[in-house]
Amino acid sequence: KKERSLRITRTRRDVTWRAVPERGEPGAPSFDLLWDSFSGYQRTAALKAAIDLDVFTAITAGATTLDALAGRCHASVRGLRALLGHLVMDGLLTRDGDQYGLSATSAAFFDRSAPSFVGSAITFIASPTINDAFARLTEAVRLGATAIPDNGSLAPEHPMWVEFARAMAPLAGATAMLLANLLDVERFPGGDVLDVAAGHGLFGITLALANPRVEVTALDWPNVLAVAEENARRAGVATRFHT
Amino acid sequence: KKERSLRITRTRRDVTWRAVPERGEPGAPSFDLLWDSFSGYQRTAALKAAIDLDVFTAITAGATTLDALAGRCHASVRGLRALLGHLVMDGLLTRDGDQYGLSATSAAFFDRSAPSFVGSAITFIASPTINDAFARLTEAVRLGATAIPDNGSLAPEHPMWVEFARAMAPLAGATAMLLANLLDVERFPGGDVLDVAAGHGLFGITLALANPRVEVTALDWPNVLAVAEENARRAGVATRFHT
Repeated sequence: KKERSLRITRTRRDVTWRAVPERGEPGAPSFDLLWDSFSGYQRTAALKAAIDLDVFTAITAGATTLDALAGRCHASVRGLRALLGHLVMDGLLTRDGDQYGLSATSAAFFDRSAPSFVGSAITFIASPTINDAFARLTEAVRLGATAIPDNGSLAPEHPMWVEFARAMAPLAGATAMLLANLLDVERFPGGDVLDVAAGHGLFGITLALANPRVEVTALDWPNVLAVAEENARRAGVATRFHT
Repeated sequence: KKERSLRITRTRRDVTWRAVPERGEPGAPSFDLLWDSFSGYQRTAALKAAIDLDVFTAITAGATTLDALAGRCHASVRGLRALLGHLVMDGLLTRDGDQYGLSATSAAFFDRSAPSFVGSAITFIASPTINDAFARLTEAVRLGATAIPDNGSLAPEHPMWVEFARAMAPLAGATAMLLANLLDVERFPGGDVLDVAAGHGLFGITLALANPRVEVTALDWPNVLAVAEENARRAGVATRFHT
């Protein structure tokens, strides 16, 4: 099938056109906000791909050019060039000539070799199940409940929550530290903390870490609580099961 | 199956904890950037649901409380409360007590009764096909090409591009006006413009609208060009097909 062409000219005098407001006029509609809202999902997808391919860790390890990164991350040059450009635009990478570097945010959170790495959270936050739920958001708002058919995520011991506990632990740890700062937990005279639906256990673990006079009781399904216990042991706090 | 509980206390003296940097310290990792990157897809999904339910148009029409909006948009109060909260957070709605209002950006772009409405673009930008492609972004970066199996979007006259042309026309019109401003097309002495893969035709149409001495040749598959011709006629410029 062939392409066709169409000639377009303004011939009528009574047809006018309107210019749109320039960017940044005060009180003007924001094109940045428009586009950020439209394209937000691309930002998540770009970050997820970069974490999957371990781009940030590779840069720390010295692969700072497109070709070096393509080799180290087992990615095509063509695909990676587009991805790196997106990450620079989003403030997650820096670029100087042909050299890519980490921004402060990606150095802290997305380099797997950093102690404050929280990138694993993306495997839950943008998991196929969650994506599917958000793809049905209009219907969910109509219903006032999830629109995923036969959604079993509230069934006892649903494995999704074990996945949640593993993926979200590092991010929750960072958030829990902010909470501990806010509550000034280090100066508590002592007390009991009840952590309901504890999941990874990181909220309780962090409060316990901040103050040895705090005793935390973490509550969850046995399969999820096993992850919390692992995390507690790794953090170096004492644990004891009750039934 | 029963829940279990786990007691957690810090008993060892050699275990310490580290506080995270406060928000906003210069050069510190940004929690806002971290969370915006993780959750960008939720922003797109919230906007899509709001446009699907026509929340913005309903507010302009006078439904400014949660209950009035739930009635008018045929949505549950529970679901809508969460959605409206998200839209306020994203700067797309204002809230004063129980009254919701439009921000300048949503008044211009997302209210279907506004002449500069571009909300239809979300049906293409966040369509199931595009979402599926972004869900496979890691694989696409590895390959350097789309990872959708049997992707036929480049086959002649693929209907996806008709859908594209219809959904994106208003947004492209706004972008085309910015382009026409930038090129100062109104002052062109005249000339030929070639619009390759014209789609909706809005780039050519807008240049023709801005200056009657400009003649645009729009090129695309016949099924797509039919949409461009509709758009040209609606805009009031003269059209003529060539083969």
